[in-house]
Amino acid sequence: MNKGLFITFEGGDACGKSTQVKLFKEYANLHPLKDKFIFIREPGGTVLGEEIRKLVLNYTLDAPVPKAELMLFLASRAQICEKVIVPALKEGKIVIADRFYDSTIAYQGMARGIMSPEEILNLNRSILGNITPDLTFYLKLGAEDARARKLKMLNNAGQELDRMEMEEMAEIDFHQKVCDGYDYIANLESERFHIIDARKSIEEIQQEIKQTFEKKLIQK
Amino acid sequence: MNKGLFITFEGGDACGKSTQVKLFKEYANLHPLKDKFIFIREPGGTVLGEEIRKLVLNYTLDAPVPKAELMLFLASRAQICEKVIVPALKEGKIVIADRFYDSTIAYQGMARGIMSPEEILNLNRSILGNITPDLTFYLKLGAEDARARKLKMLNNAGQELDRMEMEEMAEIDFHQKVCDGYDYIANLESERFHIIDARKSIEEIQQEIKQTFEKKLIQK
Repeated sequence: MNKGLFITFEGGDACGKSTQVKLFKEYANLHPLKDKFIFIREPGGTVLGEEIRKLVLNYTLDAPVPKAELMLFLASRAQICEKVIVPALKEGKIVIADRFYDSTIAYQGMARGIMSPEEILNLNRSILGNITPDLTFYLKLGAEDARARKLKMLNNAGQELDRMEMEEMAEIDFHQKVCDGYDYIANLESERFHIIDARKSIEEIQQEIKQTFEKKLIQK
Repeated sequence: MNKGLFITFEGGDACGKSTQVKLFKEYANLHPLKDKFIFIREPGGTVLGEEIRKLVLNYTLDAPVPKAELMLFLASRAQICEKVIVPALKEGKIVIADRFYDSTIAYQGMARGIMSPEEILNLNRSILGNITPDLTFYLKLGAEDARARKLKMLNNAGQELDRMEMEEMAEIDFHQKVCDGYDYIANLESERFHIIDARKSIEEIQQEIKQTFEKKLIQK
């Protein structure tokens, strides 16, 4: 049995997840248990994982084809799971992940169709053994809202996207599939999901996250 | 439909596969169709694949855990499949691979138990789509023979192995599992398998390989 707590943050584009993780990190830094928190990112989080991250994100010489990219993500996940997450949970730490396998199901599975969501779920289960998040904050936003917010964000930031990304972000269908992907796994593993309406204010959402977290901490 | 021909060489430790691939390469270099041959290796064979190879084989800083290693192999395979094998076969080339997914099933699946052979097979099918070898030369050697040959080779070469590898190679059980893994896939995809008794002489085996290859070439 794990003594620790494994918490993931999930949500589609422009749901406000990064803001909430950042705020929660600030909260953790002032928490009585502050030494117990570990925040992780993927791909990365281990020496090998950071090498893999370079291949996935910065490798223009021979960019990974979609299936190769998915496998690289999973390689990094296998490494961080065995080297970081499992030992940390055994020591009673609180591991916080900004995205985990639900994202893989929603994006690589449902939205991009690299493999079916079922295949990706099975693959993750093979890799992770019995490691499942204890609690997942899913910031849920409808496809229309996600699309509108995302396009606005991109315009404001003047972010450069390649043609394919731009098309993808402009397609309501893409955002709908991401939603469908999250709904699929949220239904299947409903016990760990805490679904938050991402249209609420930043403060309201953070409040809900903190309260739910503290409740979970007591139950553990 | 593929116009080309995809041929793989498979077999357990000390079956003489490397020698046969080397001889077949010499044969290919003098063949009337010599410009059509492409020899590939894994992990590797693409720019990305060679980077992955470094992580798998030479990365001592944070060596991949077994599941990460398996995923890295598959990432390299996805890349070489889409970037090299598929285009080559479309152009009517003859692609020769020294080990392919049968090895993954036998070694990572059956012998090391990283995932079940079924899981590894399904995963490979997901990655490769409908790419299957047209012909697989399987140099079959019993577990006892494989163990004896391997230990003799290692002693002669004065090769340095770490403790785990040495134990593995000395275990008859390990070699038996590799055999079982090959038998599993050879039964399942028997049509493409040409099984050769690896106890035959090097010359006899090469003769059988060349004849079988030429016959396949005519059928195609």
